[in-house]
Amino acid sequence: MPDNSDAPLFKKGAKLTNGYFTGDAYLLPLLARDKNNDFVIGNVSFETGARTNWHTHPKGQVLIVNEGVGFYQEKGKPAQSIKKGDVINIPENVEHWHGAAATSQMAHIAITNFLGDTNVVWLKPVSEEEYNTVNKQ
Amino acid sequence: MPDNSDAPLFKKGAKLTNGYFTGDAYLLPLLARDKNNDFVIGNVSFETGARTNWHTHPKGQVLIVNEGVGFYQEKGKPAQSIKKGDVINIPENVEHWHGAAATSQMAHIAITNFLGDTNVVWLKPVSEEEYNTVNKQ
Repeated sequence: MPDNSDAPLFKKGAKLTNGYFTGDAYLLPLLARDKNNDFVIGNVSFETGARTNWHTHPKGQVLIVNEGVGFYQEKGKPAQSIKKGDVINIPENVEHWHGAAATSQMAHIAITNFLGDTNVVWLKPVSEEEYNTVNKQ
Repeated sequence: MPDNSDAPLFKKGAKLTNGYFTGDAYLLPLLARDKNNDFVIGNVSFETGARTNWHTHPKGQVLIVNEGVGFYQEKGKPAQSIKKGDVINIPENVEHWHGAAATSQMAHIAITNFLGDTNVVWLKPVSEEEYNTVNKQ
């Protein structure tokens, strides 16, 4: 039985056009919130150079990187390089961004917990200057 | 930057010796329960023929298959073939098992919710007869 072992884990989802991403990013929904699961799960694919805006999660988020190389940065701290196989446990109410490197695409599963009906608070874009600084480290 | 794109998503973890699996299965812990995440996450790798015992989860479990081909079966229902890229949302208190096919290994991420301090109730092994029946379907 073929298992597509050489293929990406997930197909690319729909292009994100909500204004909270820079560059080309795609979302494939994997699981909706329900009575057992107080979170939503999706796979986000970032083309080279693409990244989220700065944002916070009121009850945190877990990322499981499954393709490529990118960055995770909390405000006021150095960016961390993240790659396939890494798991990132993002604390609640900490301003941060994640995305692809300038030289690689990146994809991660995102498990995003809810606090009431909110699971993300979007802030301003990661500027070219901020992004370039991280990529030159 | 290398991203090991041809490698499995996760390395194989420690061999499971708790008596609740048939055959060779391995667990790589990915995330512990904490104040934001009311679940535990791990990657379970099943060698060909390996499977869980029958069991239930008091608050359900989500599987994300990331390698190979296997089966998921709820008691009294036909088994479902599962493969890389599939997401299975297992209901609460439903007796079931999961594992590799007789002809393929399989690995899945497991996100297992807690109800109080319990996230799984183990039952009896999947017999050779039960397993062979599923693999002949």
